[in-house]
Amino acid sequence: MNNDYLKNQSSELLTVGMGGFFGAISRFLIAGYFAPESGTLVVNVLGSILLGILMYSSEYLGIVSPKTRMFFGIGFCGSLTTFSTFTVQTFQMQLVEAAFNILANIILTLAGIFTGRALVIYIMRRREGTGF
Amino acid sequence: MNNDYLKNQSSELLTVGMGGFFGAISRFLIAGYFAPESGTLVVNVLGSILLGILMYSSEYLGIVSPKTRMFFGIGFCGSLTTFSTFTVQTFQMQLVEAAFNILANIILTLAGIFTGRALVIYIMRRREGTGF
Repeated sequence: MNNDYLKNQSSELLTVGMGGFFGAISRFLIAGYFAPESGTLVVNVLGSILLGILMYSSEYLGIVSPKTRMFFGIGFCGSLTTFSTFTVQTFQMQLVEAAFNILANIILTLAGIFTGRALVIYIMRRREGTGF
Repeated sequence: MNNDYLKNQSSELLTVGMGGFFGAISRFLIAGYFAPESGTLVVNVLGSILLGILMYSSEYLGIVSPKTRMFFGIGFCGSLTTFSTFTVQTFQMQLVEAAFNILANIILTLAGIFTGRALVIYIMRRREGTGF
């Protein structure tokens, strides 16, 4: 391991960590506006829309740097959304409510990724002047 | 809003953010050891075990301060686990693989909370000298 490798590695970790710092604070603030289970659903869907936009911007528009993906994708969106809080809330519910909570989170976050992707494709087509 | 309220609010945000900083870095490092989908499953399950221990320590052992819950529960475990990466990976899978990934994450994270809770109950009973 040379110095450059270590410097690069620390810079990556710091980028991911700073994204996580702001992602966790945003989750805390946004989810705080809602009842606990709804708050978790809201941040999970919001983070999925944002990650969908980021992932497919990178794929279709090619404008996302590796550092942006680390900060925004792994750090911010990764920490804005949460699986552990979702699971502990589900664990404490009655069966029907738990099943509904699982379905709502799975279906609406998948719809979130789809929405992010659709937005990027829409922007790409507008750019190319072909309409939607 | 007085000064005390603002000071308390910033201290809460900083605590959650620092937990998120270390949670996101831990997720990045731990998940990096595995193939992407397995890595996400591993951090989600690990974070659920840790959150289970924290939540039920607070309930059964009464030794968790509000600041620890903020740093460790909302910040660290919240950011160690992720819903957005799980969803984007599921979105990109074939149907059968996607269904398997959803089931694995749901069932194993619920088992993680259960394991965390069982550990705390085991410790509590040992303390009370009643055995398990």
